[in-house]
Amino acid sequence: MNKYDEKINNYRELINTSLVNVYSTGPKILNNPINHVLKGQGKRLRPILTLIICDINSIDIEKALPTALSIELLHNFTLIHDDIMDKDLIRHGLETIHNKWDQNTAILSGDAMLAISMKLLSENNTKNNSLILKTFIRGLLSVCEGQALDIEFEDNNIVTLDDYTNMIYLKTAYMIGLSSQIGGMISNLSTEECDSLKAFGENIGMAYQVQDDILELYSDSNNMSKSLESDILLQKKTFIWASIEKDDERNELISIMKKYSTDKIKTIKNIRIFIDKLGIKEKANDFIMKNINTANDILDTLSGDVSLLKH
Amino acid sequence: MNKYDEKINNYRELINTSLVNVYSTGPKILNNPINHVLKGQGKRLRPILTLIICDINSIDIEKALPTALSIELLHNFTLIHDDIMDKDLIRHGLETIHNKWDQNTAILSGDAMLAISMKLLSENNTKNNSLILKTFIRGLLSVCEGQALDIEFEDNNIVTLDDYTNMIYLKTAYMIGLSSQIGGMISNLSTEECDSLKAFGENIGMAYQVQDDILELYSDSNNMSKSLESDILLQKKTFIWASIEKDDERNELISIMKKYSTDKIKTIKNIRIFIDKLGIKEKANDFIMKNINTANDILDTLSGDVSLLKH
Repeated sequence: MNKYDEKINNYRELINTSLVNVYSTGPKILNNPINHVLKGQGKRLRPILTLIICDINSIDIEKALPTALSIELLHNFTLIHDDIMDKDLIRHGLETIHNKWDQNTAILSGDAMLAISMKLLSENNTKNNSLILKTFIRGLLSVCEGQALDIEFEDNNIVTLDDYTNMIYLKTAYMIGLSSQIGGMISNLSTEECDSLKAFGENIGMAYQVQDDILELYSDSNNMSKSLESDILLQKKTFIWASIEKDDERNELISIMKKYSTDKIKTIKNIRIFIDKLGIKEKANDFIMKNINTANDILDTLSGDVSLLKH
Repeated sequence: MNKYDEKINNYRELINTSLVNVYSTGPKILNNPINHVLKGQGKRLRPILTLIICDINSIDIEKALPTALSIELLHNFTLIHDDIMDKDLIRHGLETIHNKWDQNTAILSGDAMLAISMKLLSENNTKNNSLILKTFIRGLLSVCEGQALDIEFEDNNIVTLDDYTNMIYLKTAYMIGLSSQIGGMISNLSTEECDSLKAFGENIGMAYQVQDDILELYSDSNNMSKSLESDILLQKKTFIWASIEKDDERNELISIMKKYSTDKIKTIKNIRIFIDKLGIKEKANDFIMKNINTANDILDTLSGDVSLLKH
């Protein structure tokens, strides 16, 4: 393990041990499922990003921690509700709340997770906390609107790459940008530098989501530890679907899904062949690289040792 | 109509016309249901309370309006999610979202309603806004915990009056107290006066909830314009259930519910007879009067013309 990986693992460890202490009171019907979810092995990408940026700017990590935890809690709120909507049974290697308990418990635990997140953030005394809270709440609405578009697109076969990028920007990239931007705010950086950090995080977020879309189709469900159901079979308009421009190609994909509808493994296999034929993996790779390069270019304009953020 | 009623009607009118303008953008899947709910004929008790207190303290109503609207939006977020959990089909005379659209739309519209509420509040420039936001977020967690207890109690036949009052305090009274307290904060009153306003609102809230519990059993469903299903048949532990102290009386209520389970109207009729025999309506009346009197006593300690708040 190199020193960068070690540092990131230490952050993750700190976040994980802190998360299990954020909600020790409250009714059992909330306390049990919330702490169940917080034991999941999430990547903790968002709070780690915040902590790295604070560390680069010599901010005491302990001071930045409550804000970073709030960001992770907000993310977990969205996962709990998204998993109900998508009927996902497994998340981060654990049963989802609506699966282990029931749907009402999941709705309410998600709501409470958000309330705990907001409470932790609003009672924090970090520098610029009022601005951070305002920024954070904008992120909350963005995530809801992104998820709404994601659901709207399920019933719409013609979703362009522009529609798709707008959706993932709202649903995923905005909040990753915000995790980075808020790191800058805690560090009392200038508005310009915070905006650059936001743009950096958003580019990483866009790349990350497209990679996730591709991995989801090419890895088996255990690797993703999310679900037995593939997004594409749920009519989710991922990068794959949005990259198909021609009607006849779109119809071909739909007919593959219809033809093998009773055999999921066969459907996925045939979709992979179809995707390979259309060169969509290469398109995705180009998209990812373009965003990573932009993110790296933004980093070059920032002061401090940003090597930990390079991709 | 006396001048008090006229004033309150004017506030309600202002709130109603303003609510339909809070969310005109966003994906259709959010915009349509959110604006549908906001057209409902709610009493607007909470924001009216905030506006009255600001008015008493000579604060420009227009300045207090965004905060009052945020409070009403938060309340509507809880209603949307509670209606899913309780399977209520009608609210304020309109179809509930999960009934008119579907459950995913309702979960997400509730989330977005909350996000819109928080955004409106966080971007407001009222005096003490940072303190108001912090107070408001504490209210959000309280409502979630109160709703959690309400659901927990459904599977628990022995719910004491203490359990019940704690639950309605968290679920209903806390937020009504907060609506009043925040009116004081906008008006830049002292901490002591704001705390008194909080206690005033909480007492009103407790009285209001117990009255609601009793009315729900004694009015027909059209009057309550909420649902065809009675709370007591859903095993909700309302004031009625929590007032029964003896095991044999509790068993009698359960056996009434079992005996007529196929005939709801007959069940309700027999529960009413049983409730009358136990003097629970009188108990409820005592509880309501005690809280109203405390609320009025608190008002007497406050400065300004508080006559509009007297009950």
